[in-house]
Amino acid sequence: MRLIAKDMDISTGGIQIVILNKQDADRMDLRPNDRLFVENGRKKAIAILDIAETEKAVPLGHIGLFEETLKVLRAKNGDSIEFHVARKPESVQYIRKKLDGHELDPYELNTIIKDIVFNKLTDVELTSFVTANYTRGQSIREILAMTKSMAYSGLHLKLKKHPVMDVHSIGGVPGNRTTPIIVPLVAAAGLTIPKTSSRAITSPAGTADTLEVITNVVLPREKLERLAYQVGGFMVWGGAIALAPADDKIIAVEHPLNIDAEGQMIASILAKKMSVGATHLLLEIPIDGNGKVSDDKKALHLKNIFTLIGARVGVDVHTIITDGTQPIGNGIGPALEARDLIWVLTNDRRGPTDLREKSLIMAGKMFEIAGKSKPGEGYMLAQKLLDSGEAYAKFVEMIKAQGGPRIVRAESIPLSKYTCEYRAPKSGRIVEINNKAIAHIAKSAGAPSDRGSGVYLHKHRNDVVSAGDLLYTIYANNKDELRLACESSKVHSGYVIK
Amino acid sequence: MRLIAKDMDISTGGIQIVILNKQDADRMDLRPNDRLFVENGRKKAIAILDIAETEKAVPLGHIGLFEETLKVLRAKNGDSIEFHVARKPESVQYIRKKLDGHELDPYELNTIIKDIVFNKLTDVELTSFVTANYTRGQSIREILAMTKSMAYSGLHLKLKKHPVMDVHSIGGVPGNRTTPIIVPLVAAAGLTIPKTSSRAITSPAGTADTLEVITNVVLPREKLERLAYQVGGFMVWGGAIALAPADDKIIAVEHPLNIDAEGQMIASILAKKMSVGATHLLLEIPIDGNGKVSDDKKALHLKNIFTLIGARVGVDVHTIITDGTQPIGNGIGPALEARDLIWVLTNDRRGPTDLREKSLIMAGKMFEIAGKSKPGEGYMLAQKLLDSGEAYAKFVEMIKAQGGPRIVRAESIPLSKYTCEYRAPKSGRIVEINNKAIAHIAKSAGAPSDRGSGVYLHKHRNDVVSAGDLLYTIYANNKDELRLACESSKVHSGYVIK
Repeated sequence: MRLIAKDMDISTGGIQIVILNKQDADRMDLRPNDRLFVENGRKKAIAILDIAETEKAVPLGHIGLFEETLKVLRAKNGDSIEFHVARKPESVQYIRKKLDGHELDPYELNTIIKDIVFNKLTDVELTSFVTANYTRGQSIREILAMTKSMAYSGLHLKLKKHPVMDVHSIGGVPGNRTTPIIVPLVAAAGLTIPKTSSRAITSPAGTADTLEVITNVVLPREKLERLAYQVGGFMVWGGAIALAPADDKIIAVEHPLNIDAEGQMIASILAKKMSVGATHLLLEIPIDGNGKVSDDKKALHLKNIFTLIGARVGVDVHTIITDGTQPIGNGIGPALEARDLIWVLTNDRRGPTDLREKSLIMAGKMFEIAGKSKPGEGYMLAQKLLDSGEAYAKFVEMIKAQGGPRIVRAESIPLSKYTCEYRAPKSGRIVEINNKAIAHIAKSAGAPSDRGSGVYLHKHRNDVVSAGDLLYTIYANNKDELRLACESSKVHSGYVIK
Repeated sequence: MRLIAKDMDISTGGIQIVILNKQDADRMDLRPNDRLFVENGRKKAIAILDIAETEKAVPLGHIGLFEETLKVLRAKNGDSIEFHVARKPESVQYIRKKLDGHELDPYELNTIIKDIVFNKLTDVELTSFVTANYTRGQSIREILAMTKSMAYSGLHLKLKKHPVMDVHSIGGVPGNRTTPIIVPLVAAAGLTIPKTSSRAITSPAGTADTLEVITNVVLPREKLERLAYQVGGFMVWGGAIALAPADDKIIAVEHPLNIDAEGQMIASILAKKMSVGATHLLLEIPIDGNGKVSDDKKALHLKNIFTLIGARVGVDVHTIITDGTQPIGNGIGPALEARDLIWVLTNDRRGPTDLREKSLIMAGKMFEIAGKSKPGEGYMLAQKLLDSGEAYAKFVEMIKAQGGPRIVRAESIPLSKYTCEYRAPKSGRIVEINNKAIAHIAKSAGAPSDRGSGVYLHKHRNDVVSAGDLLYTIYANNKDELRLACESSKVHSGYVIK
């Protein structure tokens, strides 16, 4: 079948799409999401079909091509495009198998992951894979196979170093910005720690968002390898380098449904660690009754699977289970968190003690894992490196090596200009600070896209307060968002005083 | 936030879409499939976000609008469009609930069905609903609620008649075109039978495809009510009238995955029967080891659920379990099937006996159900109406009332001009005719989109043949498709001779 090309002037950034007029499609018995094999002379492509309802969009006898397909076919308006129906990729039958409740073998999972990476699956197919994993669950064998497939589908850092340290938190606790303190601490002890972090998905700030306030977090891969050798590590945004690239596409489907299939989460985390060549991982599992990990039993279950799969892919996983029931540090939002962590690194009295303590404990644990300290002595080494200013010096070195300024002063990081305050409605002791409520207020105020917006906590759990005491300050970039966030704080302040 | 409108010159036929430049979206922390509330003066809409990777598709500071949204907003190129992030529709949380394995209540299911009908769900959300129903299964309560929601989401025929008869086959048997024979038989007996049929989804012909060879199958709703009173019934394509409109959208997702969630299938069939006001339904369940219903146990299970749900929505369901292991009739493909059924209706010796017998048995059963015949005497009435030409007269009346010709002669229905033959490779008895293989050959030859293409069977199961006897003829519209279909028949002829 031959049709005339029409340049649709649209790009998807991934999947290849062609559009037929509805009448043409009906006549040829084609449906949306059918795959077409299209040819322009010797150039060939497989594209997904969309249907245009009107003559205006795609006239009869024409085939609308998106940028990706135009490029592959080297086609332009008016070219004669030959096409016929293409077979579905092999992976569709494996997705169907998973939907039917059967276990997938490594070959089948690898085929699916490859087709995800190369944009060969439609939204319908990808979604059914993700939801099937969620509703049917995944076996250890499946998670292991998926971890390997995800790791091998992307780039790898090739570091001739041992050990290569890494740290990761399951997340869900606002302000828990230990990574930018731990990484310089670990590197200051002479260890290698090539750290990639994510941006916020549903939280007021991800580590990459916070670091971006201070320095450059998008660097070319070759530079990363150089930094690992010369500086001992780096702190960058993982999304910019194609480590485990299937992951982003899976998250894009999970995000709107707000689901996080356990097997996929484990595979995704460990695949990224494999990609940077990590040999030792400290995994933080915060427990919060209302959060991602609600109790000890769930934490222990995760710890076991991570350790098991980690061992099979060459990553020695150690876990630390922490109290995740209230925010860590004072600032929540990129700039507010950045100020906090600089104060901790410079031993300023404004540095939040809980953030300092947690970072020291975790870095200490990593020293013991790496054999830098004897068991029980890691904390002391971490304390020494922090108090002496060595960790801060390493931090400054890293920031600068990544293309940031020579020196960063916490006070010079700008905050959003509009503020409002939330004060204690009565006297008593703070018995609860709800993570979700605080995160919601910070997001209403514009975090993380407004870097300077968020919430600054003046009081923590167990503090005794008098009616009228300042509990937190909200920062927003414009009056609308400020009003929204302040109203949120009145509906559910997040603080329980008794 | 304000952006400048760009007319994208594309329509989706349903869901409303807006496109932002990737840089704008990143800056505002927006992702594909986020929902935006867009305003142009007083006109408002909620649209789904897509991302443009290039400046060419959607420049910075612009918002690309599809036809549906342009129309609702009464917007044109250069208009200033105000927008902000919209909340997800309520139904997304219920879909999530189903994904988590919980039962949905009638309110929740109704909310989802309404959002499907009004194009409020993205592909990701709709797919996860369909796959969750498939993997988690649906309770009787859920199927019942979904049946009602689907029926009430569309149009209703309001017939002040009792009984209102209907007939439906679970399908999967090629050539099984009993409906256009049964409907005139039932109407000839003075009963009311407003029949809507589907087009082929994966088969070589649907009843609507076959009827379209003879008459008009797309009629306005008011005309349908008039026909039900004046002629006693009609035979039209259900897709053209918005009866149970959620159904098409669910099928669009099931089709590429080739899944058919049982609960959804039952709800969809019964909802359509409710929509035409059917009080009595004869449901045919063909059993075929390789087909949709593979054994007695599965058939009995379906019979029970259909009867149970039917009783709760006011449809008295009777089932007939039939042998579905070989094609019915000789012709497979719209025109070939149309000729067969006219021959049966005109008592021509070329009319296939199996098609005639099956139609008489089913029509007879419907007479007994409706109280037109005493138990055991329905077949005789059907035979009388057919042999006397009364059924054919009613058929001609219907065809004409639907805008077709005054008279249709089977011989005047054109077939595709290229043919090839498949002959018995050896002598013996035909012990098997495989439905899927025959359907595949007919589809390779161009059926159903080429109305005159398909397969004509000269021999049936249990026939004794000599080597070289003609088993079937393949009809195709062009030489390419003929070659394709003939090659298919050589690979797997569908006939087993022993």
